[in-house]
Amino acid sequence: MNPSVDAPPGPRDRGLRTDAERNRARILDAAHSVFAEQGLDAPMAEVARRAGVGIATLYRRFPAREDLIAATFADKMTAYADAIDEALADPDPWHGFCTYVERICGMQAADRGFTHVLTMTFPTAKALEADRARAYRGFTELIARAKATGALRPDFSDKDLIVLLMANAGVIGAAGDAAPDTWRRLVGYMLQAFSAGNTTPLPPAPRGKDLFRAMVHAHQGQRADAQDA
Amino acid sequence: MNPSVDAPPGPRDRGLRTDAERNRARILDAAHSVFAEQGLDAPMAEVARRAGVGIATLYRRFPAREDLIAATFADKMTAYADAIDEALADPDPWHGFCTYVERICGMQAADRGFTHVLTMTFPTAKALEADRARAYRGFTELIARAKATGALRPDFSDKDLIVLLMANAGVIGAAGDAAPDTWRRLVGYMLQAFSAGNTTPLPPAPRGKDLFRAMVHAHQGQRADAQDA
Repeated sequence: MNPSVDAPPGPRDRGLRTDAERNRARILDAAHSVFAEQGLDAPMAEVARRAGVGIATLYRRFPAREDLIAATFADKMTAYADAIDEALADPDPWHGFCTYVERICGMQAADRGFTHVLTMTFPTAKALEADRARAYRGFTELIARAKATGALRPDFSDKDLIVLLMANAGVIGAAGDAAPDTWRRLVGYMLQAFSAGNTTPLPPAPRGKDLFRAMVHAHQGQRADAQDA
Repeated sequence: MNPSVDAPPGPRDRGLRTDAERNRARILDAAHSVFAEQGLDAPMAEVARRAGVGIATLYRRFPAREDLIAATFADKMTAYADAIDEALADPDPWHGFCTYVERICGMQAADRGFTHVLTMTFPTAKALEADRARAYRGFTELIARAKATGALRPDFSDKDLIVLLMANAGVIGAAGDAAPDTWRRLVGYMLQAFSAGNTTPLPPAPRGKDLFRAMVHAHQGQRADAQDA
């Protein structure tokens, strides 16, 4: 707004910057499509081709695959983290809990690229991981409140959300476009299983450090593929 | 046994046949390893390389990828179908039901190659599909008995086993070796959700024809990959 030829950046710089921004937007659009169609381990070269930029340009902007993934899904991760604030604002914690779980599982279903982002960690992607940490802190608070009302079973673990997100990703991928609402059936069952009416002991939840390793490994798998590409 | 040089096949033919059998066994061993490591869409060329045979030999024996998948997992599919007979022999149908579900989910977890075989169809693989059909017939009988005792919820659908197998595959793949027992937690929750104590209505189960299309599509995806390889 209010462009001035006197003040830096001058029109020439601004022109360059606009080109750079346009390139960046094209790369992110292309990455979003390619990740949605082929998964997060899609070849980087395919992203560059779809964006109409050279592979060198792509790597200059996004030196590692996780940088590209983080940039592509930055808005989604922020929406994911914001969703927990709405859940915490619900006067009925159990209702807030169920609505939240359905919502984030729905976010996985609505965007095939994003489906697996929630079950991986990208340690160098600071903004993305800050959103994930914010969501996690809020979720542990929501769990405590929902247990305090007696509606959420006492042996529910914060790890169980990751288990469900992994399971949901499996259903979304396998059911595909042929049976796109199948995930709702899974989530419906799981929410009922989470309710305190079910008192039969469960197999142990995965340990946090093991689950974290799994989430890092999934991501390292992507990196290994990236190096092959 | 009791080889005779007079009776066909003569020793020379038998020698050839033995070579052929040895090649076949090496291909199936290699396919099993490669499918377990890289998934059912692993390059056919990688199977040939690992088996130490030419790609032409591989395609002569297994003209389509589904032929190779079917041959590789023939014994597992038979064991899968046999498991329903044991479940039906349980005097307590609900106990038989729970044991069966845990067992086949455990079969998915124990063999990464086999994990996805149960959520795909391979229409031309007659023996494999006959085993699948036998398992399905037995499972519908088990469902009827477990509902009749009042232990299995009346709105449980035969499609829900496929939903669970898809979900379980997602957990097995994502949790990997880092948290290998995570699938037990999922199955524990789902079995409790299946019990008749849960009376809240569920989202509808996927329609059979949609689920079948999904299972065919998953397989067609593999074929498309095969053609690229």
